[in-house]
Amino acid sequence: MIKIDYDQVVHLLEERQFTELAAFLKEQHPADVAELINELPQEFHLELFTLLDPEMASNVLSEIHDEFRQEILDHTNSERLVNIIDEMETDEAVDMLSELTDDVTQDVLSALDDEDRTNYTQLLSYPEESAGGLMQTEIIAVYQKLTRNEVIEDIRQNYEEVENIHRVYVIDDHHRLVGILDIGHLLLAPDSAIVAEMMDTSLISAQVDMDQEKVVNLFRKYDMYVLPVVDEHNRLLGRITVDDIIDVMDEEATEDAYRLVGLNEEDRVFTRPINSVKKRLPWLTLNLLTAILISSVVGIFEETIARLSILAVLMPIVAGLGGNSGTQTLTVITRGIALGELTLHNTWKAVTKEITVGFINGVIIGTLVFLLAFLLKFDPRLGFILGVAMVCNMFIAGLVGSLIPVILKSLKIDPALASSVIITMLTDIGGYACFLGLATLLIM
Amino acid sequence: MIKIDYDQVVHLLEERQFTELAAFLKEQHPADVAELINELPQEFHLELFTLLDPEMASNVLSEIHDEFRQEILDHTNSERLVNIIDEMETDEAVDMLSELTDDVTQDVLSALDDEDRTNYTQLLSYPEESAGGLMQTEIIAVYQKLTRNEVIEDIRQNYEEVENIHRVYVIDDHHRLVGILDIGHLLLAPDSAIVAEMMDTSLISAQVDMDQEKVVNLFRKYDMYVLPVVDEHNRLLGRITVDDIIDVMDEEATEDAYRLVGLNEEDRVFTRPINSVKKRLPWLTLNLLTAILISSVVGIFEETIARLSILAVLMPIVAGLGGNSGTQTLTVITRGIALGELTLHNTWKAVTKEITVGFINGVIIGTLVFLLAFLLKFDPRLGFILGVAMVCNMFIAGLVGSLIPVILKSLKIDPALASSVIITMLTDIGGYACFLGLATLLIM
Repeated sequence: MIKIDYDQVVHLLEERQFTELAAFLKEQHPADVAELINELPQEFHLELFTLLDPEMASNVLSEIHDEFRQEILDHTNSERLVNIIDEMETDEAVDMLSELTDDVTQDVLSALDDEDRTNYTQLLSYPEESAGGLMQTEIIAVYQKLTRNEVIEDIRQNYEEVENIHRVYVIDDHHRLVGILDIGHLLLAPDSAIVAEMMDTSLISAQVDMDQEKVVNLFRKYDMYVLPVVDEHNRLLGRITVDDIIDVMDEEATEDAYRLVGLNEEDRVFTRPINSVKKRLPWLTLNLLTAILISSVVGIFEETIARLSILAVLMPIVAGLGGNSGTQTLTVITRGIALGELTLHNTWKAVTKEITVGFINGVIIGTLVFLLAFLLKFDPRLGFILGVAMVCNMFIAGLVGSLIPVILKSLKIDPALASSVIITMLTDIGGYACFLGLATLLIM
Repeated sequence: MIKIDYDQVVHLLEERQFTELAAFLKEQHPADVAELINELPQEFHLELFTLLDPEMASNVLSEIHDEFRQEILDHTNSERLVNIIDEMETDEAVDMLSELTDDVTQDVLSALDDEDRTNYTQLLSYPEESAGGLMQTEIIAVYQKLTRNEVIEDIRQNYEEVENIHRVYVIDDHHRLVGILDIGHLLLAPDSAIVAEMMDTSLISAQVDMDQEKVVNLFRKYDMYVLPVVDEHNRLLGRITVDDIIDVMDEEATEDAYRLVGLNEEDRVFTRPINSVKKRLPWLTLNLLTAILISSVVGIFEETIARLSILAVLMPIVAGLGGNSGTQTLTVITRGIALGELTLHNTWKAVTKEITVGFINGVIIGTLVFLLAFLLKFDPRLGFILGVAMVCNMFIAGLVGSLIPVILKSLKIDPALASSVIITMLTDIGGYACFLGLATLLIM
């Protein structure tokens, strides 16, 4: 495996042997250099980055963690940025441009030639999380009437610029996508073959405004490597490659995991502590409010607790299991939604299943708790109440853990916003009300 | 977008117009047929599946949800299974074979020709979650001394069998991998070119026993489409294509999300309720034990609560925020580990950051709670105790939420096993002990 010796690089940096280090870095794979930067203490990042030639820098930048890249971009002058952008693929260049301050973006754009500037301005206008925001405009597009040799000549002229040419796109006179030509097919065809005879017309493409989650689902479903992007008139605009889809999948999985616990997507392992504090406080404040709400429900029964303090001791049992059950259901349902498994025709089946599972588990755990209370020689009424509270709690867990994300999804709101805090609030309130309410009725 | 009319198919199924339906299905994309099966009520699955010809069936099977596929496989006879396997790529065939009962697997294997049987027996011996378990053996491998035209002839002979030929692998006389030849490069090269002149020798490959998570990280890092797999002597065994990596990423993301809340990976949206109940009970039982443990800590202070029942009312506030903070930290750290962002050189930085963030947030929320208690005219000692319990709680949340997964990882145990139940148990115990302990000391 290709791997850079971390200690050796730190040594060269500390000894300020920059010429030697630059020569060494030139020989490495850009992904390894990016990984090195991600691991190095932040004070070395800029020093090391300035040693890279524009081509290496262009390949390294997109692989550096967001927070580190931002720092590097902020300290790189426009002239070098232009040189770096010239070496980038269009999709990466646009991502970088969108991370610069508006002033710097304008500086860089005005230093580019007219064609590039128009192209980038157009690309910057697409939402970042849409097909247009993901695509690159480096494609090879040919007309149906061309011969095999003419297509090969076309590929030859663009070979340096377009990476991973596995397919050539076929367009008509209005630039509309009409077919796809696999390069292996082209290789094996006779010299005299015409594009129209060789191309595959069963097309799968994405509209430029398609949300990136849907784009990922196309790759997932049809096992694609590259997907053409078209406008509303089916005119070919660009292509999305699978390596970008892998990045989007990582992003989406992080987003889903984060939303469930109320984290902001930009709050990552290496975000500065002060920024993490700021990003987490609003959610913790919301959580404080839900906790106060739960506490006020318990407060209704303060008199009962005052007379029977064992109830307070048992409260964590009521709360713990309901919250966990609800979060389990929530996780199953939101994962199903994220993977596109839940559709119009099967959602209700999934919801009733979760409610059933919650209820059955509640009955089993409730019985277990009742028996345990009996063995420990608790007041049998107490065991009964605790058992019933469990059933109640875990039934609510199945109900709200499945229904809330499904309802949010149908309202086109991110289902992960249901989140464990909201679900736990509902199971806690239901569980405590049931437990303390029954205790007030039966024991007082 | 290609899409099947669900209601029309249900109509044909109910009217038992199977000939018409079979003809209709023949024209569809296999991924659409698989999606249709996933959405149809289960009683139609077998009927519809038997209408598919072996080639369509082979492409549909791997896209059906696990629980449905198992049902279909259990009801398909060996003869048809052999026909289907003949149409499959080797990696999918092996996945299918491993899902059959041992008897059926033997039946199917003995019906295959010698070469296939030897190949499949070998492939079945690799662990499912390793490079060997993911790879397919359909590859084109050529010798260095071949000319361009000889390579093209080789590709022509294998074109039907090997899908997505983007690269040809170059081997030496001992079948060792020595280079890679991009098919675009081959297309543009002169007729007389020799493989050795055209190939790229900067190789990235996976050892056959490499864990699938590491394989995914190679695709992630080096933006690959296809990865060659070699044995310990660098002999070429097969290749892994990126569409399989997308499936693995989905699996791994599900696994991570599931482990955090103690779910079994096989407990999916459409798992039968009884199976979900069985899979969740062990974890809920563990959760019952942690809840009893927490309860017993509260029990130590029962007398304090008996005298001051407001403490019980405030307990949910102590528990809620610590648990949520801990789960947030746990999520940030386990995501960082899953994406390969945490390495030897930067883990400690991440842990100290989380502890710092936990402490600072604790101080802020603690102060907020103290002021709130003051405004609500609570006993100021009570506000103080609640505030201190918050600091204590959220500090523990940062500490255990980051340290436990990191320690588990260094012991080569899945860090997600730390799980919200364990973290919440620790923050609850810490928070309650601090809150009720201080109350006992200061107010009693």
